[in-house]
Amino acid sequence: MSSTFGRLFRLTTFGESHGPALGGIVDGFPAGIRIDMDRILSDMSRRRPGSTSLGTKRSEDDIPRILSGVMDGVSTGAPIAFAVENKAQISSHYDEIAHTFRPGHADYSFWAKYGIRDWRGGGRSSGRETLSRCFAGALAKQLLAMKGISVDAGVIAIGGISASSYSWEPPFANELYAPDCPELEAMRAEVEKAREGGDSVGGIIECRARGMVPGLGDPVFDKADAILAMAVLSIGGIKGVEFGSGFGAAAMKGSANNDQMAGGRFLSNNAGGILGGITTGEDIIIRAAAKPTPSISISQMTMDEDGNDTPISVRGRHDPCIAIRASVVVEAMAAIALADMMLIKEAYSG
Amino acid sequence: MSSTFGRLFRLTTFGESHGPALGGIVDGFPAGIRIDMDRILSDMSRRRPGSTSLGTKRSEDDIPRILSGVMDGVSTGAPIAFAVENKAQISSHYDEIAHTFRPGHADYSFWAKYGIRDWRGGGRSSGRETLSRCFAGALAKQLLAMKGISVDAGVIAIGGISASSYSWEPPFANELYAPDCPELEAMRAEVEKAREGGDSVGGIIECRARGMVPGLGDPVFDKADAILAMAVLSIGGIKGVEFGSGFGAAAMKGSANNDQMAGGRFLSNNAGGILGGITTGEDIIIRAAAKPTPSISISQMTMDEDGNDTPISVRGRHDPCIAIRASVVVEAMAAIALADMMLIKEAYSG
Amino acid sequence: MSSTFGRLFRLTTFGESHGPALGGIVDGFPAGIRIDMDRILSDMSRRRPGSTSLGTKRSEDDIPRILSGVMDGVSTGAPIAFAVENKAQISSHYDEIAHTFRPGHADYSFWAKYGIRDWRGGGRSSGRETLSRCFAGALAKQLLAMKGISVDAGVIAIGGISASSYSWEPPFANELYAPDCPELEAMRAEVEKAREGGDSVGGIIECRARGMVPGLGDPVFDKADAILAMAVLSIGGIKGVEFGSGFGAAAMKGSANNDQMAGGRFLSNNAGGILGGITTGEDIIIRAAAKPTPSISISQMTMDEDGNDTPISVRGRHDPCIAIRASVVVEAMAAIALADMMLIKEAYSG
Amino acid sequence: MSSTFGRLFRLTTFGESHGPALGGIVDGFPAGIRIDMDRILSDMSRRRPGSTSLGTKRSEDDIPRILSGVMDGVSTGAPIAFAVENKAQISSHYDEIAHTFRPGHADYSFWAKYGIRDWRGGGRSSGRETLSRCFAGALAKQLLAMKGISVDAGVIAIGGISASSYSWEPPFANELYAPDCPELEAMRAEVEKAREGGDSVGGIIECRARGMVPGLGDPVFDKADAILAMAVLSIGGIKGVEFGSGFGAAAMKGSANNDQMAGGRFLSNNAGGILGGITTGEDIIIRAAAKPTPSISISQMTMDEDGNDTPISVRGRHDPCIAIRASVVVEAMAAIALADMMLIKEAYSG
Repeated sequence: MSSTFGRLFRLTTFGESHGPALGGIVDGFPAGIRIDMDRILSDMSRRRPGSTSLGTKRSEDDIPRILSGVMDGVSTGAPIAFAVENKAQISSHYDEIAHTFRPGHADYSFWAKYGIRDWRGGGRSSGRETLSRCFAGALAKQLLAMKGISVDAGVIAIGGISASSYSWEPPFANELYAPDCPELEAMRAEVEKAREGGDSVGGIIECRARGMVPGLGDPVFDKADAILAMAVLSIGGIKGVEFGSGFGAAAMKGSANNDQMAGGRFLSNNAGGILGGITTGEDIIIRAAAKPTPSISISQMTMDEDGNDTPISVRGRHDPCIAIRASVVVEAMAAIALADMMLIKEAYSG
Repeated sequence: MSSTFGRLFRLTTFGESHGPALGGIVDGFPAGIRIDMDRILSDMSRRRPGSTSLGTKRSEDDIPRILSGVMDGVSTGAPIAFAVENKAQISSHYDEIAHTFRPGHADYSFWAKYGIRDWRGGGRSSGRETLSRCFAGALAKQLLAMKGISVDAGVIAIGGISASSYSWEPPFANELYAPDCPELEAMRAEVEKAREGGDSVGGIIECRARGMVPGLGDPVFDKADAILAMAVLSIGGIKGVEFGSGFGAAAMKGSANNDQMAGGRFLSNNAGGILGGITTGEDIIIRAAAKPTPSISISQMTMDEDGNDTPISVRGRHDPCIAIRASVVVEAMAAIALADMMLIKEAYSG
Repeated sequence: MSSTFGRLFRLTTFGESHGPALGGIVDGFPAGIRIDMDRILSDMSRRRPGSTSLGTKRSEDDIPRILSGVMDGVSTGAPIAFAVENKAQISSHYDEIAHTFRPGHADYSFWAKYGIRDWRGGGRSSGRETLSRCFAGALAKQLLAMKGISVDAGVIAIGGISASSYSWEPPFANELYAPDCPELEAMRAEVEKAREGGDSVGGIIECRARGMVPGLGDPVFDKADAILAMAVLSIGGIKGVEFGSGFGAAAMKGSANNDQMAGGRFLSNNAGGILGGITTGEDIIIRAAAKPTPSISISQMTMDEDGNDTPISVRGRHDPCIAIRASVVVEAMAAIALADMMLIKEAYSG
Repeated sequence: MSSTFGRLFRLTTFGESHGPALGGIVDGFPAGIRIDMDRILSDMSRRRPGSTSLGTKRSEDDIPRILSGVMDGVSTGAPIAFAVENKAQISSHYDEIAHTFRPGHADYSFWAKYGIRDWRGGGRSSGRETLSRCFAGALAKQLLAMKGISVDAGVIAIGGISASSYSWEPPFANELYAPDCPELEAMRAEVEKAREGGDSVGGIIECRARGMVPGLGDPVFDKADAILAMAVLSIGGIKGVEFGSGFGAAAMKGSANNDQMAGGRFLSNNAGGILGGITTGEDIIIRAAAKPTPSISISQMTMDEDGNDTPISVRGRHDPCIAIRASVVVEAMAAIALADMMLIKEAYSG
């Protein structure tokens, strides 16, 4: 169950960082739609290491091969499988951590759960797994676009520095994938400073779905926000999620937080587009907190599999701020969750 | 799918605020366990309106009747169904809002989705639905207790006032269900002030699972935190959730946020007990943001079903701060999610 | 998981034969539909013991109470819960079998699985559980009828006596719920003979869905026939299921079994309305084999919980041929499965 | 949902007959188990065309490549993905049927459902899809073997010729994969006769699980037989399934069909190892009816996509009796279903 997300639009992923290949299966994509490969490649490229000068310098290629479900470029209704080969990964880089738990990583918890772990580059919990989400997310966005819905995400805070004001005009054509804001340069400097210090830094990603329709989501357990939260928190390194006024609502009065209506529309959107778990038609607004990259070269104390204390300094080139590249993954997971809700809504409109 | 949560430990709920009855079915509860009715009644009582002097004065009784799955007080492995009768609800109180959308409520989104809505007391989206979660949560807590795990929740912030320091010693025997902290009196005053002003106020609930075992949760989509987030955000009025350092992690350096290990244990718990979606054995720490109660007597602008603007002042007695009574529901949903993960873990330990 | 069936149209049942109540929750029924209570009561009545002079003489009342999901007689989109009280059951009738395994019953397998069992009247595995299926089946049939689809079932063989020729004109207004056929009287005599001898007899139920649309079911695991088979075999006492030419196809040549087409239609229906797991628009034809009622007064050898051999003669009034009353349950389960497939199909027609 | 089977042991398949590749993902396979590749290759080989002189002469290679979930030959708990490349398929063989519906095939129903179909070699509904089931079935059998359970299937009837008596001593080392019986030669002749006449013939497959444990399966909808029936009927060309005395029970008296007990064991196994949906520990006995191969060279009438009548004679080499090669697929699906039930049972034995 671990590796499948969704009910009617379903993504199942497979693959480890240094295994033969990674990929997935999108089941439930409607028939008769010309697949937009440019969108897929563009989203996967945005996730790829080296896509921004602020990321890791490791070079990956990651061209997905479609194995099924598409004939002459058009979906047939059958499951769309895809795979990306892992090539030229030098596992020996990881030899020294084969039996040592990197702080902040899943190394210890995997070992405790399975008694075995693929330690090469994070194995199953590697960020590389998210390339499959980007592939599927692009398909989901294509479906949503056919209904007039767009989903975009960008970075709005890095370290302690938050965007004080910004307009939402994606795509965000800067190295941070951030909406234009006065703090852009300061954020960038924060990332560079972390890199130079062998450290890393966290960030906040905002994701918006615009052109929404009312009626997505179900009233009780399958609330739109509940499912979106699961989707976003299923991304490694995300430690929190909020909708609309979010944690800020905890400090507000009802008279301020309630979204009043007049002239047939809402006068504000503290709800983030969702009331009682059902979309209102207003923009969905999600914010996700990404922790700082756990792989840092600063030495820290940890334990090996035999229980011995040992210092560790994680070598190799790692993103100093995963929030930047994770933004497209948040976008993908939000889109997958929404496409799934859209199909379920359609089931009842016959 | 809307009304079921869980994979092996499954709760399905039914019922509207002013319909004949509310209740649910717990499917997947193991056989041969003596049901702890005191725990069930105690949790349901804690959720009940009027359970605290700070809540609504409306009186409810809410004694659940077990309909199946239990013989001579012991579970048989069959689904445990239960129901609470709705009595003496005066629907006419709601007549004036039958065709008007209360701000901050699900009234508009339900109407837009279904074209029909049970407007009496919130219908399906009423907070009364959560009595079923408390029933099931008590069963889940009983299962977890057999493994040495306890789950508790309390209020740690109300309005802008946060507990500055507190030790975690549940149960929290005060009207706020809050851990003892210097700000307790100020928080209480904040609630009273909101009530007197015909307004309401938000709050933050913290939930901890202690005595944890490592290995709960799955590495990719069914991460422990992803499922817990869905569980908690499926509660009406919750607008955000975070784990461990949560949104705070976004402002931290990796060197500070990583939990180092020494002497066979973690030296900190910024991860909130979960790494890579899998529990580490450390306490799980969840925080949930509850918005201010949307029902306030202060007049606000809204719309009726015909699209006419109209002011509305919601009458009746409503909790000025739902975070207080919602804490036991957060506790319940976290326990249900963890009990489910525990059963799934057991499946692989044979 | 045990007690839920369906993906979008979902039935969860609860209850034991001699517990407080039986019932269920139908989740995923569309909003805005006036519930046809007559159909529900009529189907439940057809299942009820004593509904035919050939059945058990035990009298049951079984008026379901709707607990949620319906307002002023119209569905709201919320889960429809219902319950039937168990009254005046005399459990002491079962005292002598409290610790002895009745041959052909689930007594032994329940005990081996759970270590505990509700022995009163079969507990969870009692045929009384199927009253919930009849309730939900009537709702499913109402949905299907809105699309022009009808689902009916009747008995076509009892003991070794098979209907040699019959036309399909439901409802089948005789005590066997059988289509009119030359063997009707012989079948009836077979049942009477079994009853008089303290024995029981098996039968075959045929179920047809007419007015079908093409395109229900999915090509691989969720084939229409696979899901219908699961639905029908989930009924206690059913030991086999076949579609169209069924087991007969095993003895046929391809040239005879293939359904040729001409003039825009199929010239035969050996496929039973399903090709490659997807409906063709032809009538769906299902046949289910019901075993003879295991409860017989003829003495048989069995074992008690301590492993001692003991003869047993099951007292009380039992149907000599469960196929008769089971026909409406087959109808219900087929309808539920088809309604679920119909909703899933709608999801992709947007 | 269409392409996934199972709850804890889950198989998702992908691929078309003439697309780039076929394969699947097995999710939920426990960690730390050395994968038995010989068993996988042997099962896949048994399914492969040309594996028996009675099958099609088409040559396929079908060596699966494992893409994930296995490190140094040992499972890691991560999903095991695998793929088989489709090479040198000559699609032009199928040009003439690109717009014509072959009788007995899924061509028409696919076209009616999706409005598009991959007509090359059957596309998604090709029997080649079952190679993925054989791969996963071998893994499931390995898991079951660790609990002492074996699953085997063989052919017991072809055309109208049934094995009159046989002992169950797998593997069945003859070209029919049939248990040794007096009719073996006659069955073989029946296949040859069909082939020579450009026709095909149906058959019956029996599958037994031995070394069973009691307690698999759930009492209501997820009955062991219901799930096994879905598993087996999800195989293309299977038109019926029965357990134990099966359809024969419909002609029996209860006194004969009930399995009596003495000396701590059952005296017969008419139940086929399942009572009330729960395994008893006796052998599970399943029989499946396979229809005759629809692809025959005898000319038949059909329709093209424009609604024109047209005769068709399906060229190419096709198995005259798919029951033979389908036996290993029945074995695989039964094993997958049982492995899934076994994991669910383990969840409750902690």
